[in-house]
Amino acid sequence: MTKPIIFLQRTFRDEFIDNIQAIALDYQVKTELTDEEVSSVEVSVGWSKELAESLRSSSQLKWVQSISAGVDYLPLKDFSNQNILLSNGSGIHALSISEHIIGVLLGYYRGLNQSVKNQEKKIWGQESIHYDQLSGKNLLVVGTGHIGQQLSKSIRSLGVNVYGINTTGHPANGFVETYSIKNLAKIVHEMDIVVGILPGTHETYHIFNNDIFENMKKTAVFINVGRGDTVHTKELTQALENKDFAFAALDVFEEEPLPTDNPLWKMENVLITPHISGMTVDFQRKFMDIFLANLKSYVASKELSVNQVELDRGY
Amino acid sequence: MTKPIIFLQRTFRDEFIDNIQAIALDYQVKTELTDEEVSSVEVSVGWSKELAESLRSSSQLKWVQSISAGVDYLPLKDFSNQNILLSNGSGIHALSISEHIIGVLLGYYRGLNQSVKNQEKKIWGQESIHYDQLSGKNLLVVGTGHIGQQLSKSIRSLGVNVYGINTTGHPANGFVETYSIKNLAKIVHEMDIVVGILPGTHETYHIFNNDIFENMKKTAVFINVGRGDTVHTKELTQALENKDFAFAALDVFEEEPLPTDNPLWKMENVLITPHISGMTVDFQRKFMDIFLANLKSYVASKELSVNQVELDRGY
Repeated sequence: MTKPIIFLQRTFRDEFIDNIQAIALDYQVKTELTDEEVSSVEVSVGWSKELAESLRSSSQLKWVQSISAGVDYLPLKDFSNQNILLSNGSGIHALSISEHIIGVLLGYYRGLNQSVKNQEKKIWGQESIHYDQLSGKNLLVVGTGHIGQQLSKSIRSLGVNVYGINTTGHPANGFVETYSIKNLAKIVHEMDIVVGILPGTHETYHIFNNDIFENMKKTAVFINVGRGDTVHTKELTQALENKDFAFAALDVFEEEPLPTDNPLWKMENVLITPHISGMTVDFQRKFMDIFLANLKSYVASKELSVNQVELDRGY
Repeated sequence: MTKPIIFLQRTFRDEFIDNIQAIALDYQVKTELTDEEVSSVEVSVGWSKELAESLRSSSQLKWVQSISAGVDYLPLKDFSNQNILLSNGSGIHALSISEHIIGVLLGYYRGLNQSVKNQEKKIWGQESIHYDQLSGKNLLVVGTGHIGQQLSKSIRSLGVNVYGINTTGHPANGFVETYSIKNLAKIVHEMDIVVGILPGTHETYHIFNNDIFENMKKTAVFINVGRGDTVHTKELTQALENKDFAFAALDVFEEEPLPTDNPLWKMENVLITPHISGMTVDFQRKFMDIFLANLKSYVASKELSVNQVELDRGY
């Protein structure tokens, strides 16, 4: 009988392949597949459109380890019906995204974005620089998972007061207070900064809409590094045109790349970044910390020890 | 006999004028002077070119409270000869400058500067984004005073290892290790980030020159928020052309505004900001914390309690 296959849909260094093989002695580790081998894949690391149909229809597939934190692009219902386990890459990108958010805030508050634009035109322009102080601001993290907790830990030490929003308002590490998602529109007027770090689910679709924007402070900043479709793009654009709040930094969009005819590109009070907040150095090691931990428990007992996705919830 | 004058060369809110008057009952507080009144000024808050000559030649002047941290533009020798006390604004700008430095670093490491440039051209450009991680970097603060200590406190909590340089290498709060300025060229090769926060003195003139730049890591970042003439601009420009190190963020220059024909404006590996790092909200309150403390001790005993400048040293 052929040994079942652990299929890596992404390149990893030899040392990590060796680590995998040492844990999973009764498995073959493959980075490419023949047509016949597809039906022997038991564990898939990553998920590509090309192989989705054939992998899913194989009765051998038992576990998918996603590379990303968000798993809304995966066939969660099918996985659930076929009892396929799913784990995600949540946590890998937490430090990078946290650094991105702090950078974006200081770029705005310290007039650095404006300086970059002025430099392109050789304009000194000291008088055109808007400046403010990050320390002392109230920041609301919408989504208190790995990334939200890392952000809270880092930015609190810069003097920021960090509040959190999650599904039920349950307490989370490092937040002054946490609220239920139902109360978002009610508390947003007290915040200087609102950061969206939500997964894409039925419940979070277009959750950042006019009900939120119209209640924000005139001086507030909105940042989205979660999923693009958590934001109602048209209502956001309108709110920014009306100057309902002061500045938006957007790393994710309902359509990516952001189409060139989208008005957001040209707005002075918007920073567009091309879905880069999660880009992280030392990615392979960070990913393997998760995957190898899961592989050990999977080999021992067909269970996952970290980052298992609840398929009906979607994160 | 006319009461001696406390002359404010800058506008302050009424509440602060009241505070001053309440402490200095035997003084007049003035924001404008007649020609006759100049000779009655005993305390000057701020220093302007227009009044420099007449104030200095008056034998009544006893104390100058500078607004800025740097005092290299003041006639220190004359003050020394005439026994005029001098105090500076050191500390007021520490938080702002610290936030500026962190913003500049994350703007570079997280590809935000490049994103601002791309946005101007509606370029998505994810593949053009350079990214790195701030956490884990070694940072050398050249000048371990108020600003250096604030920076160290803030940026350590983001996972950065902070080393310090000062005149003698004496220990300072919050640094992994401190070295004497003599050793700058020797240790700079171990650093990912070098931050100049030096006052302008005889000893610091052109201290950042090719001896330093040629020893820096190829990947290193250089930031100057001290005095412009602590940097040998021509040698810096050459080093950046040679790519001796990776990136420079410059907020101060030997000539300000930076002349439009200066090649630094056009360099991709340079961020020019127009001497804005010290711009700070709530300036008046921060300044009055220093001035009123000094005013109390001055009125009581003709001594200053904080921020006195050693006139022969220059800071």
